[in-house]
Amino acid sequence: MEELFHRRSARIGQAPGNLHHMGPARTAPVRITVIDYNADHLGEREVATIDECTECMSPSSVTWVNIDGVHDPTMLERIGEKLGLHQLLLEDVAHTDQRPKLEDFDDRLYVVMRMLSVSRVEDDDEREEFTVASEQISLVLGPNFVLTFQEDPGDVFEPIRRRLRENKGKIRRMGADYLAYALLDVVVDNYFTVLELFGDQAEELEEEVMERPTVETLRDVQHMKRALIQMRRALWPLRDVLNVMIRGDSKLIRKPTIVFLRDVYDHIIRVVDVMESFREMVGGLIDIYLSNVSNRMNEVMKVLTIMATIFIPLTFIAGIYGMNFENMPELHWSWGYWYVWAMMLTVGAIMLLYFRRKRWL
Amino acid sequence: MEELFHRRSARIGQAPGNLHHMGPARTAPVRITVIDYNADHLGEREVATIDECTECMSPSSVTWVNIDGVHDPTMLERIGEKLGLHQLLLEDVAHTDQRPKLEDFDDRLYVVMRMLSVSRVEDDDEREEFTVASEQISLVLGPNFVLTFQEDPGDVFEPIRRRLRENKGKIRRMGADYLAYALLDVVVDNYFTVLELFGDQAEELEEEVMERPTVETLRDVQHMKRALIQMRRALWPLRDVLNVMIRGDSKLIRKPTIVFLRDVYDHIIRVVDVMESFREMVGGLIDIYLSNVSNRMNEVMKVLTIMATIFIPLTFIAGIYGMNFENMPELHWSWGYWYVWAMMLTVGAIMLLYFRRKRWL
Amino acid sequence: MEELFHRRSARIGQAPGNLHHMGPARTAPVRITVIDYNADHLGEREVATIDECTECMSPSSVTWVNIDGVHDPTMLERIGEKLGLHQLLLEDVAHTDQRPKLEDFDDRLYVVMRMLSVSRVEDDDEREEFTVASEQISLVLGPNFVLTFQEDPGDVFEPIRRRLRENKGKIRRMGADYLAYALLDVVVDNYFTVLELFGDQAEELEEEVMERPTVETLRDVQHMKRALIQMRRALWPLRDVLNVMIRGDSKLIRKPTIVFLRDVYDHIIRVVDVMESFREMVGGLIDIYLSNVSNRMNEVMKVLTIMATIFIPLTFIAGIYGMNFENMPELHWSWGYWYVWAMMLTVGAIMLLYFRRKRWL
Amino acid sequence: MEELFHRRSARIGQAPGNLHHMGPARTAPVRITVIDYNADHLGEREVATIDECTECMSPSSVTWVNIDGVHDPTMLERIGEKLGLHQLLLEDVAHTDQRPKLEDFDDRLYVVMRMLSVSRVEDDDEREEFTVASEQISLVLGPNFVLTFQEDPGDVFEPIRRRLRENKGKIRRMGADYLAYALLDVVVDNYFTVLELFGDQAEELEEEVMERPTVETLRDVQHMKRALIQMRRALWPLRDVLNVMIRGDSKLIRKPTIVFLRDVYDHIIRVVDVMESFREMVGGLIDIYLSNVSNRMNEVMKVLTIMATIFIPLTFIAGIYGMNFENMPELHWSWGYWYVWAMMLTVGAIMLLYFRRKRWL
Amino acid sequence: MEELFHRRSARIGQAPGNLHHMGPARTAPVRITVIDYNADHLGEREVATIDECTECMSPSSVTWVNIDGVHDPTMLERIGEKLGLHQLLLEDVAHTDQRPKLEDFDDRLYVVMRMLSVSRVEDDDEREEFTVASEQISLVLGPNFVLTFQEDPGDVFEPIRRRLRENKGKIRRMGADYLAYALLDVVVDNYFTVLELFGDQAEELEEEVMERPTVETLRDVQHMKRALIQMRRALWPLRDVLNVMIRGDSKLIRKPTIVFLRDVYDHIIRVVDVMESFREMVGGLIDIYLSNVSNRMNEVMKVLTIMATIFIPLTFIAGIYGMNFENMPELHWSWGYWYVWAMMLTVGAIMLLYFRRKRWL
Repeated sequence: MEELFHRRSARIGQAPGNLHHMGPARTAPVRITVIDYNADHLGEREVATIDECTECMSPSSVTWVNIDGVHDPTMLERIGEKLGLHQLLLEDVAHTDQRPKLEDFDDRLYVVMRMLSVSRVEDDDEREEFTVASEQISLVLGPNFVLTFQEDPGDVFEPIRRRLRENKGKIRRMGADYLAYALLDVVVDNYFTVLELFGDQAEELEEEVMERPTVETLRDVQHMKRALIQMRRALWPLRDVLNVMIRGDSKLIRKPTIVFLRDVYDHIIRVVDVMESFREMVGGLIDIYLSNVSNRMNEVMKVLTIMATIFIPLTFIAGIYGMNFENMPELHWSWGYWYVWAMMLTVGAIMLLYFRRKRWL
Repeated sequence: MEELFHRRSARIGQAPGNLHHMGPARTAPVRITVIDYNADHLGEREVATIDECTECMSPSSVTWVNIDGVHDPTMLERIGEKLGLHQLLLEDVAHTDQRPKLEDFDDRLYVVMRMLSVSRVEDDDEREEFTVASEQISLVLGPNFVLTFQEDPGDVFEPIRRRLRENKGKIRRMGADYLAYALLDVVVDNYFTVLELFGDQAEELEEEVMERPTVETLRDVQHMKRALIQMRRALWPLRDVLNVMIRGDSKLIRKPTIVFLRDVYDHIIRVVDVMESFREMVGGLIDIYLSNVSNRMNEVMKVLTIMATIFIPLTFIAGIYGMNFENMPELHWSWGYWYVWAMMLTVGAIMLLYFRRKRWL
Repeated sequence: MEELFHRRSARIGQAPGNLHHMGPARTAPVRITVIDYNADHLGEREVATIDECTECMSPSSVTWVNIDGVHDPTMLERIGEKLGLHQLLLEDVAHTDQRPKLEDFDDRLYVVMRMLSVSRVEDDDEREEFTVASEQISLVLGPNFVLTFQEDPGDVFEPIRRRLRENKGKIRRMGADYLAYALLDVVVDNYFTVLELFGDQAEELEEEVMERPTVETLRDVQHMKRALIQMRRALWPLRDVLNVMIRGDSKLIRKPTIVFLRDVYDHIIRVVDVMESFREMVGGLIDIYLSNVSNRMNEVMKVLTIMATIFIPLTFIAGIYGMNFENMPELHWSWGYWYVWAMMLTVGAIMLLYFRRKRWL
Repeated sequence: MEELFHRRSARIGQAPGNLHHMGPARTAPVRITVIDYNADHLGEREVATIDECTECMSPSSVTWVNIDGVHDPTMLERIGEKLGLHQLLLEDVAHTDQRPKLEDFDDRLYVVMRMLSVSRVEDDDEREEFTVASEQISLVLGPNFVLTFQEDPGDVFEPIRRRLRENKGKIRRMGADYLAYALLDVVVDNYFTVLELFGDQAEELEEEVMERPTVETLRDVQHMKRALIQMRRALWPLRDVLNVMIRGDSKLIRKPTIVFLRDVYDHIIRVVDVMESFREMVGGLIDIYLSNVSNRMNEVMKVLTIMATIFIPLTFIAGIYGMNFENMPELHWSWGYWYVWAMMLTVGAIMLLYFRRKRWL
Repeated sequence: MEELFHRRSARIGQAPGNLHHMGPARTAPVRITVIDYNADHLGEREVATIDECTECMSPSSVTWVNIDGVHDPTMLERIGEKLGLHQLLLEDVAHTDQRPKLEDFDDRLYVVMRMLSVSRVEDDDEREEFTVASEQISLVLGPNFVLTFQEDPGDVFEPIRRRLRENKGKIRRMGADYLAYALLDVVVDNYFTVLELFGDQAEELEEEVMERPTVETLRDVQHMKRALIQMRRALWPLRDVLNVMIRGDSKLIRKPTIVFLRDVYDHIIRVVDVMESFREMVGGLIDIYLSNVSNRMNEVMKVLTIMATIFIPLTFIAGIYGMNFENMPELHWSWGYWYVWAMMLTVGAIMLLYFRRKRWL
């Protein structure tokens, strides 16, 4: 399981505004890409520092600055100064174990969300295991720019870039708020992909629980339950984020965009809904598992009982005629041995009939 | 189990307003039927395209346009243009895994709900299984028209058509809002039919759990639980939809109709109530199942224990007198053999009495 | 268990205002009794149709019309016309699977509640079983009349009639709202009687679970749990009904009566409280039951283990000396047989001591 | 367990204002004690009837009238008349199964709460059992008097009397509302004492569950759970009572007293908190109990399996050489017998090693 | 487990304002340290009594008075007089089992919170056990001073002192409210450290549950569950405290500080989130534990069943040919003995194949 939060023991009591990245150490250089567009033109380039981005604050175009990597405090500070970001906003960008939230700094809207990805790894017992990784996406919406911070290169925003380049739909004709919507939308839609994988996994587990349950199966069920809880933590608060955006209190979000944000809100509700269904389903698997174990024990016991119950009386009979008393008349009957065999077969048959009537056979 | 949502991996990041149908592929031609009526006349016909429906916007009559099939993007777009529907409304019509909701576009009310149907199929083990299928019904209420979109032909609206044709009750004298109410009402009433089937199934399962539980029984119980959860997802949000309609904020719904909508609201509450009772009942079945398995194991163990406990000492006695010691006085007694039989019968009888006192027999 | 709702498959899509009774078919003639009173006089008689009730609308006296039987649509329609009742109100009177609710039609208050009765029946296994039956009581409060509809003759209102006849307390001096209060009060107080029976049953079940649990016990526990859930469904919404009445929005309920309604509200809260306690208690019974089954199995296993563990080594020893080797010196010892007995007794004693130390004996 | 409510079947439908005591019959004479005080003087005496209490309504002093016993309807009626109490208030005083509540009769505040006491009794199996008894305390706050009704003599108010007599703190300088606060405070503080006993009992039960669990242990755990639920019912609503008092709507409660009431509120929250912790703890005990039972069964099974598995093959070997075939070469070997012993010891040793590797030994 | 609350039986009914410390007795002398600072200077010293702290009320600097030890009533009273603290505030400082809360005395804000520390002790069975200890921190915020009360010396405030001394960040330039924020922040951040330990422990327990579960494991799981509940009690109410502070009703908290408090609020939400995840995880461990026990029993039963089922028929065959009948032809066959061996090996092989097909081997 991914770490639930970053260890911060060493940082306790530091002054706020600490921009040292929290999370697994990264050394890759930070990449800043700038896309500047309006209905008529589109420019796309990579810059070394934010200061090169001269068009960021220009009111005649929308600028999307995407930063891959939040582990360089100096760069963060520069960006904060250049674009007027609050000290605590920058701190939250750097400390990448935030839960989704929206903070309204009047002329800047700050949205934190998590981009999920699922990978399957083999654990010690050579069983496939299921891991949800999540990356913190920080989105800052200004009057005519959108800033996105990602922990690592590689994202789900490619389709947006394509729509911008190809001038598809009305994205080029709308403002920065519409771009923010499009980015949110694509992150949320990605949750459905993750859920599809969960669904496949859940079905596999169900089959395994029914057919050949082992302790590992139960562990996997528990892991899946945990992954769902973790995912829920990443999604549920996003609902409140959207709720606040829809309410329309911020002047940065224009009325026509709100209808679209309502659509994203609907998607989140649906994702959470499906997730809850999976949780119930996984909970049910544990019940089936336990009852399956009981049933198997029951079957083992039945085999033992049938074998023992049939042969114990027979062995007893054999024991009787193995006694060495001088005076045992049966031993001297010429058909005695065959009589005993007949008796034994009768006893065995009665037992079998008894078990058949009990439906154990 | 029906899919909880449609796979949309391929669509992530597309511009909103995408009208490509999501859901199982369909090829049947789209059917558009138009019923136009007021207190005095009623016309009913099938049209090829929405443009043929000249009376749709006429204020002197109410027009009900029913569209069977939402998999033709061009047609949807035409309808949207003709009747002034928002791009996102059309998208929700086409993406048929919406949860029930109401969207108020001022002069258009958009209601999504699900029409349920239950079918029983045989699964791999030749047991009857229980499946809830649901179809998305989109209802658009305009000033004097009602639009209904269905995924497939075949619906529960026939009684309404009959009432319209036969001019029964006051439906012909009321406006489009009353027609919308009547359609909602018939969809909700249909839920009771589905619940009846659930009730029958639950009783069968209860009997099976009591009389002859198997792992398949438990799986069926779990499936029923899941079907109830799924059904709950289709119903619970409808409550909010009605709640909003009753509140009377929309000018499209007139006061006299609200009383009737309150009645539909009551029905939904009752459906949910009954469903919750079923859930509790099904939950109880799992308890009974598990305890039944334990009881059966208990019985198996008792049989084994009784047999073993009676014969083990007897076999021991037989073993004693099967020893080959030269000097074993009992072997030479002339009644020794019969003494041993007497001893064995005594021991056996004592055991039986013991078990009887323990109430195991 | 009583049906949770009436099957209505055949009615789907009918026009609202359908007054055909839903529920078990009844043929008994409908009885209408009228009690008309004020502080000075009291008249009590039975009428054939509502039209004979000329005093119903008179402002100088309070009239209580009680109708036993709601299965005659014509009569219901006549009453509706005469007393100005809404079409949907009458429909709810006739469809007797309503959940408790209050509907405010300005000059008419409509209250639905359920009158409970408990009966004990013998089931197939000749065990007493516990059934809660409920009858729908519809109460309509007008300016100076109260209408009550019952499904069957026989009710809990007798004490109220007596108080009216004997002019006890201030009931004759108060208005129709006070009469409505008195009727509500007596229905709610009746719930306590039902709960007393539940309490007795729960104690019996607890004893049975402790002393001699069988699968039937568990089924009864589950049935009781279900009956409590069912009862909860009949009671919980009544709380909201009273809550609305207390709020004092309706002009039909005067201020002095509200204090009394608050008292009824308190009673409902208490009934629900007690019911919840029963539910928790019954839930605990299932735990005790399951652990009792485990304990019994444990005991069975111990008996088997003790017997087997003592005799298996002894039988082995006997087996040794039953071997036919030519050269077995012990067989020729003159005290060999007795030595073996001594060895066997020693082994048996050691086993017994071991079990005693393990506290199995 | 204490009765959850009083049987009231015989009373259904009686006029409100019925002052006949409900609850276990009591015959002890009712005691009325009056304490009248202000900053300067304090008078304390016992009166026969409320009419002797001439100072009750005097505005220059605070009067605390305590009545031990609510089973005398005439006396209650007299008190009601003298001090202006509503008929329903008196009814609630007499019917001593109320849940805690506050009723605001403008110039009288009526508070019902429960005084708890715990006793340990021996049950049928000579085990100590744990019982929570509760007594209804009714407190009426008037402009300058406080009335307290108790079911039986003996209470937790002694410290208050002492503080009044010794003029400790500011109680003598404050009004009737402060006295009411002090009385509430002492009742709530008493809950902590009850919780201490619960804590001790819970620890004892935990030890018993770990060391020597029996079915009686489980029953005790269930009883404790139930006692906690019962206690919760007595406490939780008190929270709302205090909440309303703090809100400061009543003119009978002055501002400076509210700070103190907030303190009582805090205490209640804490009591409920601790109680919830106990409930979780007790719930955990059931889990430990059940797993302990499983573990014991496991141990029993292991002993059986080890014994049987070691001796069954050995007995088989002995059986082989007990066969009476004419032609069995081993029987004639001179070291045959010792070879067999060697074989048996080897087989036994292998078995023991196997069990040791399985960690069963 | 730490005591859930302090025993207060002896104190019931005492006048409010009682300043006798509740909790484990302490005798160490009370230490008062004063840090007085503004942007320009910083003074730090230890005083014997609060009266020596002349600068406390000076408006030109912020004064932080830290008191280690609340068991000296006289000193508390002096502090209360000097700094104008309400009697009940002082009582809550002295009674150190408060739950976190905020009380607003207009010109003083009183915040109670708990500082957590975790220690691992060895229990009776020489297993490491996990204990959460908590110390009550009382923080009083005045116009230009902050008072902190701790039960014992030793705290988590050292980093704040360092920041003050080294004039790091803007802490020296801000007011008393910012100091209060910094102290709150450091206490909350400390919770993460505690959670890290919980996480390590949870992982250890999970491994133990999977590999070698014993009853002690289950007890530890239960203890951890309880510790989490206890921790939750210490944290959850703090959320409300912060919520109230953020709302900005108090004039003691200036606007710029509120943004920082919102950050603390976020941290608390996250701590609670992580804690809930741990609770779910620990709950899942109990399921795995129980199923593991079942699985082990299953394995034991299989070994028994396989051994018994193979050898019981073989022993029976040996028993047959151990009988002493005169007329048993097989005994005289010259290859009889070897035929029997062949039969036995065949039966054994069939059994083994059977078990292999059942996947028991």
